[in-house]
Amino acid sequence: MMSKQGILTVVSGFSGAGKGTLMKALLNRYDYGLSISATTRVPRVGEEDGLEYFFLTRERFESMIEQGELIEWAEYVGNYYGTPKKYVEEQLAAGKDVILEIEVQGAFHIREQFPDALLLFITPPNAIELRNRLVHRGTESMDKIEKRLNRASEEAVFMKQYDYIVVNDDLDECVEHLNEIIKSEHSRTLRNDSFIEKMSNELNVFKKGD
Amino acid sequence: MMSKQGILTVVSGFSGAGKGTLMKALLNRYDYGLSISATTRVPRVGEEDGLEYFFLTRERFESMIEQGELIEWAEYVGNYYGTPKKYVEEQLAAGKDVILEIEVQGAFHIREQFPDALLLFITPPNAIELRNRLVHRGTESMDKIEKRLNRASEEAVFMKQYDYIVVNDDLDECVEHLNEIIKSEHSRTLRNDSFIEKMSNELNVFKKGD
Repeated sequence: MMSKQGILTVVSGFSGAGKGTLMKALLNRYDYGLSISATTRVPRVGEEDGLEYFFLTRERFESMIEQGELIEWAEYVGNYYGTPKKYVEEQLAAGKDVILEIEVQGAFHIREQFPDALLLFITPPNAIELRNRLVHRGTESMDKIEKRLNRASEEAVFMKQYDYIVVNDDLDECVEHLNEIIKSEHSRTLRNDSFIEKMSNELNVFKKGD
Repeated sequence: MMSKQGILTVVSGFSGAGKGTLMKALLNRYDYGLSISATTRVPRVGEEDGLEYFFLTRERFESMIEQGELIEWAEYVGNYYGTPKKYVEEQLAAGKDVILEIEVQGAFHIREQFPDALLLFITPPNAIELRNRLVHRGTESMDKIEKRLNRASEEAVFMKQYDYIVVNDDLDECVEHLNEIIKSEHSRTLRNDSFIEKMSNELNVFKKGD
């Protein structure tokens, strides 16, 4: 890797695109810093505090907002979601890539504060597949599934503002692909100003020395 | 891969950065379309016509220029170098990624004709290493090596106009990295307008149907 600063990667995507499963697999397989989000929503069966989310009361969450301790926060389907700031900044400064899974509205707030953030949007290969996945997940009523599909239709408008559109067709391939995208981004010219300057200066010294 | 159209990748870099060796390894290991350049320079020992280059007379080369059969051509250290157009366009249309190894001046001519071309710049990790590689190659006089280093100093100015700066430190890692960058680029949002439109339309149909 060339650039010393870690890359902040923001992962969004349609509800049902498989973001959660992808993130778990990616973080198991590779050495990323994960920023665990805070939320006021009720844990699903099997979810643990400090693992999937920090599950907070509304009072505690609102206090963090007031203290400026969150990079971003949003209210979504009646609950707060947010990202504690301190951990993310420390990781990036230490050269570690950090991945955040964030709803669409939150992603653009992150980009305002971290202009070099890399925004990835996860999508199933088509809309039928999205509906099938929501239905087969089996944790939601048909009414909620319809709401999520309507929401997806609204979110699709924002896909163009992401840097990459990543199709999650095969979990394993998608995890590899996400990792490749982030690795590749380290070599992007815009992230390597200081290397270019160093190399140019060294070559100029040779020229003068000849 | 998401986008159906192949990506035209243009690889440039300092003389001595190891472009030739990298290209050979990349094309051996992965399924890329290689566009073989035409040149009027004399073959080096071991080089075969139709493999490293098409070795042409000046008369034949100038006839191809006149007929518009070259995407780009340039004169460099007294010889013509150029890229036959037809083969490249056929490969891209068939969804195949094509890689061109082109001098700096030629790379920007390609971008004018193929705005979606991906421009990669190969560099050793530092200038000392560049000089060492030129010296150890042993095929050039010290005078020619100095000329190449002066040339590198001039070319460094153009690094910022490339999309990626790829450090060739370890051959094997660099080959993998080049392949990852090209694979990743297929998911870049700007290359997936038609997918985004299709997905948006499908989701809108669901919305109306509900």
